[in-house]
Amino acid sequence: MSFTKHLYDKLQPIWRKNHDHPFVKELGEGTLPKEKFRFFMIQDYLYLIEYSKLFAIGATKAKDVKTMGEFAKLLDATLNTEMSLHRQYAAKFHISEHELENANPTPTTLAYTHYMLHVGNQNGLAELVASVLPCMWSYAEIGKMLDERHGKQNHDYQEWIDMYADSEFQALASWTINLLDELAAGKPEHELAHLEEIFLTTTKFEYMFWDMAYHETGWPKGL
Amino acid sequence: MSFTKHLYDKLQPIWRKNHDHPFVKELGEGTLPKEKFRFFMIQDYLYLIEYSKLFAIGATKAKDVKTMGEFAKLLDATLNTEMSLHRQYAAKFHISEHELENANPTPTTLAYTHYMLHVGNQNGLAELVASVLPCMWSYAEIGKMLDERHGKQNHDYQEWIDMYADSEFQALASWTINLLDELAAGKPEHELAHLEEIFLTTTKFEYMFWDMAYHETGWPKGL
Amino acid sequence: MSFTKHLYDKLQPIWRKNHDHPFVKELGEGTLPKEKFRFFMIQDYLYLIEYSKLFAIGATKAKDVKTMGEFAKLLDATLNTEMSLHRQYAAKFHISEHELENANPTPTTLAYTHYMLHVGNQNGLAELVASVLPCMWSYAEIGKMLDERHGKQNHDYQEWIDMYADSEFQALASWTINLLDELAAGKPEHELAHLEEIFLTTTKFEYMFWDMAYHETGWPKGL
Amino acid sequence: MSFTKHLYDKLQPIWRKNHDHPFVKELGEGTLPKEKFRFFMIQDYLYLIEYSKLFAIGATKAKDVKTMGEFAKLLDATLNTEMSLHRQYAAKFHISEHELENANPTPTTLAYTHYMLHVGNQNGLAELVASVLPCMWSYAEIGKMLDERHGKQNHDYQEWIDMYADSEFQALASWTINLLDELAAGKPEHELAHLEEIFLTTTKFEYMFWDMAYHETGWPKGL
Repeated sequence: MSFTKHLYDKLQPIWRKNHDHPFVKELGEGTLPKEKFRFFMIQDYLYLIEYSKLFAIGATKAKDVKTMGEFAKLLDATLNTEMSLHRQYAAKFHISEHELENANPTPTTLAYTHYMLHVGNQNGLAELVASVLPCMWSYAEIGKMLDERHGKQNHDYQEWIDMYADSEFQALASWTINLLDELAAGKPEHELAHLEEIFLTTTKFEYMFWDMAYHETGWPKGL
Repeated sequence: MSFTKHLYDKLQPIWRKNHDHPFVKELGEGTLPKEKFRFFMIQDYLYLIEYSKLFAIGATKAKDVKTMGEFAKLLDATLNTEMSLHRQYAAKFHISEHELENANPTPTTLAYTHYMLHVGNQNGLAELVASVLPCMWSYAEIGKMLDERHGKQNHDYQEWIDMYADSEFQALASWTINLLDELAAGKPEHELAHLEEIFLTTTKFEYMFWDMAYHETGWPKGL
Repeated sequence: MSFTKHLYDKLQPIWRKNHDHPFVKELGEGTLPKEKFRFFMIQDYLYLIEYSKLFAIGATKAKDVKTMGEFAKLLDATLNTEMSLHRQYAAKFHISEHELENANPTPTTLAYTHYMLHVGNQNGLAELVASVLPCMWSYAEIGKMLDERHGKQNHDYQEWIDMYADSEFQALASWTINLLDELAAGKPEHELAHLEEIFLTTTKFEYMFWDMAYHETGWPKGL
Repeated sequence: MSFTKHLYDKLQPIWRKNHDHPFVKELGEGTLPKEKFRFFMIQDYLYLIEYSKLFAIGATKAKDVKTMGEFAKLLDATLNTEMSLHRQYAAKFHISEHELENANPTPTTLAYTHYMLHVGNQNGLAELVASVLPCMWSYAEIGKMLDERHGKQNHDYQEWIDMYADSEFQALASWTINLLDELAAGKPEHELAHLEEIFLTTTKFEYMFWDMAYHETGWPKGL
């Protein structure tokens, strides 16, 4: 069994909780209150800035020019294309670029991004990929799941669903899954256990991110 | 006005909240439920392992042999002396070494430590010192405050108070405060603003750490 | 006077030595022995792989999305466009892609690249930019100088000269020069002195790189 | 066969060249010109400052508190004990502390140290240990070899030989050898090949360091 298949099976209980989160369900049905989505979009934008840095670090850790080039493309696409799509989509929810750039990350956003950044800086490429994969993989699954469940709908969040159900995003998730399998191949048990722990931790942070957005949880009052 | 004096004045409202947290008050009075303290001790032990790495990174960022040597002493003292004191003290609360070593960090512990680790790795020494200072400084203040407020008492937490009220710990806090002032001297406004943001963020994490311990907050149920 | 103008004036003696190196002169005249150029091309290719990582690190250190995006473009252009131009140009000198990918870096190539990589990782963005600038700036100057000195010629190295005399490459050097000036603005003297030392060191490595190529200097015999 | 035994066997030709270098031979016989040794001592001091940082990075990469503590002890011993022994020993050769602290690293010193620092920062602990081991191991071997070859002599370099022939230094080399074997255990072939390449590269830099000192090679004239 491939390493990622093993991870997928083992973490099903958490993935289920993740995919069944009210935020995700209501997003799919189009019933999610706009305020919750606005909260999500702003934190997601801040998240993406930090997440893109993982691709940059990936480019410095890859051992061959081809893989370096793939990370470079991802970094460039994220910063110079996707983020402007995010800004355009945010504008539809009356979130200005100024609001996006000047927002403060919540503790959960900081926790999730800085966990990945430190793990990505501090170890080899396998650990970096293990840390970034749950976000991509679960968004790909959620996009596909909502698309299959509801078909094309006419609500505010359809564009969001389309973005992640899209074959290009699905291909990106597959590329990253394959890369982790290649990097994990032949590693000793204790190193695989470490990769699993990293993957598990960012999987949990995925859940916490949905939860944070649904409850619009920032810093404790008065801080 | 020195840079740290400026920080101190500006952040008084948060520091007050911090020092007045029920965890701190009840610790001083000796009325803190043991379970809350056990929760704290275990997370604090995990925190200290990561915190000590900041001293190691400090040794690699310092520009002169003397400062490098100071960080080396701190790292050695933390790992080879303080942590065994922590283990001994924990044993009094029936926390075994095995329990300490195998505990899982909570989201707040991960958030706080990985924020510092990434900031410390990614920038110059000034940013690293700004990130580690709130922990030292507020523990020194809390130790002194509780010692002055209550005098020597006969409860379970007196040993903890003594450790941070001790002149050696007070001197360590002063050394770090002075180091930040030296490193900040002459820096342009936008760099000082960045240092302030870092200091503010770990100050907030200090509050969240007390709060996490007081409510024994781990990962959401089912994760 | 801008910081980079100060650097430029101060380092003129070394820059002169650099630009007057026999490798550079003979390259301009078209008299450089092909073997020396082949040696250069292979090491330059290995150099470029590592150099591109500095752009990736730059993307992680930049404080705003715009500058991050610029570094991302540079990284992508280097890995996914320029390196294939290098491979095509190398083919004209009968250097296969296989030879490029399997070549070993010389001590000078390792020294120069790893100095930059460590400085870039270990400090803020200003230090990273100070370390990468001499390569860009001196290639821009050399390209322009040889172009002006000789006009369009019909020899093997004209394509190389055109690449660096090109307005796009000149614009890249200007962008980097301006970025260093922005980042250095308002910094205290001892930090500027550190930036100058870094800039000076990679300027010296530029000279050593030409010299290594001209004398085809690898590892000592028997190693 | 253990991984380090494999490395040892495979690299014998280079190790022989290394141990038979005129610098090493004349050091053992006491005939080495003082100027060459002075040159060596100054660069060795600068080297040691950077080398100690590898222990600090090791403390941040180790996965258990015990190994972290060992690296912390090494860092502290190097910076707070050994370096002052070096200063005392240097004083016997009329090298002042001021001269040591203000010396400039040669290209070879920069190349060797920054190669290790980048490799140590960028990868896992195994790669860091592979990069630092050749220095320790070959000094332990050279110390023992010269001690056995000549016995106790009455010349200027006996103190140097004693330092590395000493059982404490031999134990340090053994600890590091064992650590590399533990870390390499079970790793796939391509990762072991990478460790071997790192070990080979710093082994070559060891040779170049002796050679640089013997020929008192600094930067090219005029730089």
